[in-house]
Amino acid sequence: MPAHPLKTLIEAADRAITAEDFDSLMDFYAEDATLVVKPGLEARGKEQIRRAFVAIAEHFNHSMLVRQGAMQVIEGAGTALVIMHTLLDTLDRDGVASTLERRVTYVFRHEPSGAWRCVIDNSYGTDLLDG
Amino acid sequence: MPAHPLKTLIEAADRAITAEDFDSLMDFYAEDATLVVKPGLEARGKEQIRRAFVAIAEHFNHSMLVRQGAMQVIEGAGTALVIMHTLLDTLDRDGVASTLERRVTYVFRHEPSGAWRCVIDNSYGTDLLDG
Repeated sequence: MPAHPLKTLIEAADRAITAEDFDSLMDFYAEDATLVVKPGLEARGKEQIRRAFVAIAEHFNHSMLVRQGAMQVIEGAGTALVIMHTLLDTLDRDGVASTLERRVTYVFRHEPSGAWRCVIDNSYGTDLLDG
Repeated sequence: MPAHPLKTLIEAADRAITAEDFDSLMDFYAEDATLVVKPGLEARGKEQIRRAFVAIAEHFNHSMLVRQGAMQVIEGAGTALVIMHTLLDTLDRDGVASTLERRVTYVFRHEPSGAWRCVIDNSYGTDLLDG
C-alpha cells in the first residue's frame, strides 16, 4: 500500500524544520493556521508561526532532528486528523543529546487545489490536558 | 469566562447518546463526517455513524452515561480540535457498573451558518497508536 500523501508531506515539513528552512516550512500551513507552541501558548497565522519556529530552533540550540514513528490518519469531510509518534533529537549547550518522544495531533484541510494544508499543529496531543 | 460553545454542544450530544436519541445526535455531524468506531474500524457519513451508535448502545446494554472532564479547544482556519477527558459509565448484563476513561479527540468545522459540525470523532485519542 502506498504511504498516505500526508506522511510524505509531514516528512518534508520535518526536514524543513531540521534544516531551519522556515520559508519552505510555511508552505505547509494554511494562512490562518494555529500552532500550539507550548501548553497555553498558541501562534496564529503564518507570521506568528514562523516567529515561533525561529524561537524554538534557538531554544534547542539549532540542533533539532525530527523523526516520525507510527502514524494514523482519519479523514472526514475534507479534513484529516493525523495522530503520530514523533521523536525529537536535540543537543544542549554542552553537546549532550536527548530525545523527546511525543504523540502529536495535526489537523489538515484538503484544499480545492488538491493540496493538504495544516490548519492546527498540536505537538502535545492529549497531554495538553495535563497542563 | 463563558464556556466555549463547543463545550455546550458536546454536552448536548452526550445527552443525546445517553437518551439514545440518535436522530438528534446526527444533527451534530457533518454529512460526510467520520466516526472511529474502534481502532481500525471507521463509520463514514451520517447513515453509517447512526448505525454504529445503535450497535454501540446495544453493546453497552443500553446503559451508557457519558460525562465530560477537562477540555481544551484549539481553533485554526475555521476548524477546531477538541481534546477532552471523557468518562463513560456503563452496566454489564448482570448490572455491574464500570467506567471507561478516555482522552478523546474531535475535529469540528465552523459552517458558514455559524454552526459547528463534527467532521471527525475519535474517542480513542492518541491511544490509536497502540492498536
